[in-house]
Amino acid sequence: MSNSADIDDREEGLKFQPKFDASGLVTCVATDAATGEVLMVAHMNDEALRKTIASGEAWYFSRSRNALWRKGETSGHIQRVVEMRLDCDQDAVWIRVEQTGAACHTGRHSCFYRKVEAGEGGARLSFVDADRLFDPHAVYRK
Amino acid sequence: MSNSADIDDREEGLKFQPKFDASGLVTCVATDAATGEVLMVAHMNDEALRKTIASGEAWYFSRSRNALWRKGETSGHIQRVVEMRLDCDQDAVWIRVEQTGAACHTGRHSCFYRKVEAGEGGARLSFVDADRLFDPHAVYRK
Repeated sequence: MSNSADIDDREEGLKFQPKFDASGLVTCVATDAATGEVLMVAHMNDEALRKTIASGEAWYFSRSRNALWRKGETSGHIQRVVEMRLDCDQDAVWIRVEQTGAACHTGRHSCFYRKVEAGEGGARLSFVDADRLFDPHAVYRK
Repeated sequence: MSNSADIDDREEGLKFQPKFDASGLVTCVATDAATGEVLMVAHMNDEALRKTIASGEAWYFSRSRNALWRKGETSGHIQRVVEMRLDCDQDAVWIRVEQTGAACHTGRHSCFYRKVEAGEGGARLSFVDADRLFDPHAVYRK
């Protein structure tokens, strides 16, 4: 169990001590350094975090593929990290990036291309900023 | 298992079908609608998501307290939702909010008040935008 001295140290200290979840991951939010738009939410394990810090380019850990993943390794759409920040309890990372091309595997600049609004009978979605910058079938050949 | 028709529907459709994890949660990123700054990363369960959409104010689910949580219920520092978006695979939510006071329980405007940089012998942290807007001990009395 954490005690309050541990919490104070993690929240108020300057020691880098990421708090990985049971799967060994922290959450990472990438925003466009120019516009502030959220591009994607993904995960990093210890190795992805270290490689991102050392290289200045975003590395993630893919839960679905269970593998370390250099962003853009297939598509060429890399993310250059302008700044990395860590949240209060050190279990979430925010990177401001210069995105080459598109962040989303669907071909959109951002993964957040649908808006949610209250509607009768429940929430409804609509497309917003949903233009494709590339054709995913051409880029990710199977 | 998901098949590709399910994936297409979730990624390209306009049906709201959030993909909750094994704990029944989606990740939520809240950014400041005025500045684009990431304020916090937290989680929502189905009820928190519905209440947020219906009320226009942010509700979360606290994993540490295992409880639904109206943001600002103790501190008064509520978040009015300007826009909600959903990501490609519908397991992450982005809300742009008007933040009353400070988002972070430590008293800072944002939870991301420390910068991470590469250093000799590993990453190092430094404070940035870390001024406290309130005294957490006065607000969260025990």
